[in-house]
Amino acid sequence: MDKAIVLVSGGLDSATVLAIAAREFECLPLTFDYGQRHAVELRSARAVCEFLGVSEPRVIELDLRTIGGSALTADIEVPKDGVTTGIPVTYVPARNTLFLSYALAYAESVGAHDIFIGVNAVDYSGYPDCRPAFVEAFEKLANLATKAGVEGRTIRLHAPLINMAKAEIIEHGMAMGVDYGLTHSCYDPVNERACGLCDSCRLRKAGFEQAGVSDPTRYR
Amino acid sequence: MDKAIVLVSGGLDSATVLAIAAREFECLPLTFDYGQRHAVELRSARAVCEFLGVSEPRVIELDLRTIGGSALTADIEVPKDGVTTGIPVTYVPARNTLFLSYALAYAESVGAHDIFIGVNAVDYSGYPDCRPAFVEAFEKLANLATKAGVEGRTIRLHAPLINMAKAEIIEHGMAMGVDYGLTHSCYDPVNERACGLCDSCRLRKAGFEQAGVSDPTRYR
Repeated sequence: MDKAIVLVSGGLDSATVLAIAAREFECLPLTFDYGQRHAVELRSARAVCEFLGVSEPRVIELDLRTIGGSALTADIEVPKDGVTTGIPVTYVPARNTLFLSYALAYAESVGAHDIFIGVNAVDYSGYPDCRPAFVEAFEKLANLATKAGVEGRTIRLHAPLINMAKAEIIEHGMAMGVDYGLTHSCYDPVNERACGLCDSCRLRKAGFEQAGVSDPTRYR
Repeated sequence: MDKAIVLVSGGLDSATVLAIAAREFECLPLTFDYGQRHAVELRSARAVCEFLGVSEPRVIELDLRTIGGSALTADIEVPKDGVTTGIPVTYVPARNTLFLSYALAYAESVGAHDIFIGVNAVDYSGYPDCRPAFVEAFEKLANLATKAGVEGRTIRLHAPLINMAKAEIIEHGMAMGVDYGLTHSCYDPVNERACGLCDSCRLRKAGFEQAGVSDPTRYR
């Protein structure tokens, strides 16, 4: 089996991606500790990897607090009044670009040519770095930026959820046996319990409803 | 004056770029502590910024050692037997992609739309992420990845040295009053003295010779 780097966050989307990738690749999960409010994500990421029988995620520490500019890493209130149009304050500057850059470095270092990311352009929060054009541009960059690319071994960036609605993602994951009770999506949890009101909770909740699946999330 | 993020390493190229950028922009220098063998780079970066009258560089700590794969960050010998063709072992996987991703995050966070990098595709070590096609691909990505790009404020990636020979860079910098005695290029220094034998030392030395300028480097 070829190796693949899989970005995992502990959330619903990346758990589904990991299950998809694990069918074809030896997965090397990569996660980040970036001073986010929701450090419970890291525990969820480990639990998901263990459940799916892949190796423990490598944790990269990146201090986005020194850069600032997001409600997820700075002292800005997480909005609770519903998903709005436009880019919200929870947007973390260039986050997916950074995550993918580390994934690319890791891929080169271990000789992997496949990278998986759980971005989604349907039921999402309006972040620019979740769109298909972004994914295509990064793949192009990856092939110009690396030894592998130069030597003709194509690097592929897989975003299998990009065109799926949240309910579809859940249905897909359930069919593969993903335990969504281990995942965590809330931007502002208290004692590991989800707020139920932030964008991420609202999108997740609606997904379970639309999929007709009982929501395993523990709310406050 | 508009703000610009300038990647500085303490080396000759980035010192020249900083002098160029400082003529038109309020420069915010960004540098990296990535467990490199040549930690003296960081002291040089600070000295160069002070000399050029720009603010102190913000230092991002990134642990590339956990990713490995380069003679600059792992326990691999730095080659001393001359510049060869192909990509050398001193290549750090996806390094410029990572550096530029942080620069992009910092730019978004402070509202800057200009990023400067000292890559050079003429007298260089054969790294894939120093080529014009890489720079173009990153600029394209930057405009798709960010709030600024989505909202129509173009992000520009400047690589003013990309087509210059090392001697030209030195002449250009000398004309702007850059003190190259403060800069540092060696991949394997001992007590802040350059080895004179690694690729980086050889390219630098030849540059001073070709420019007809006395080399201020302190060799072992």
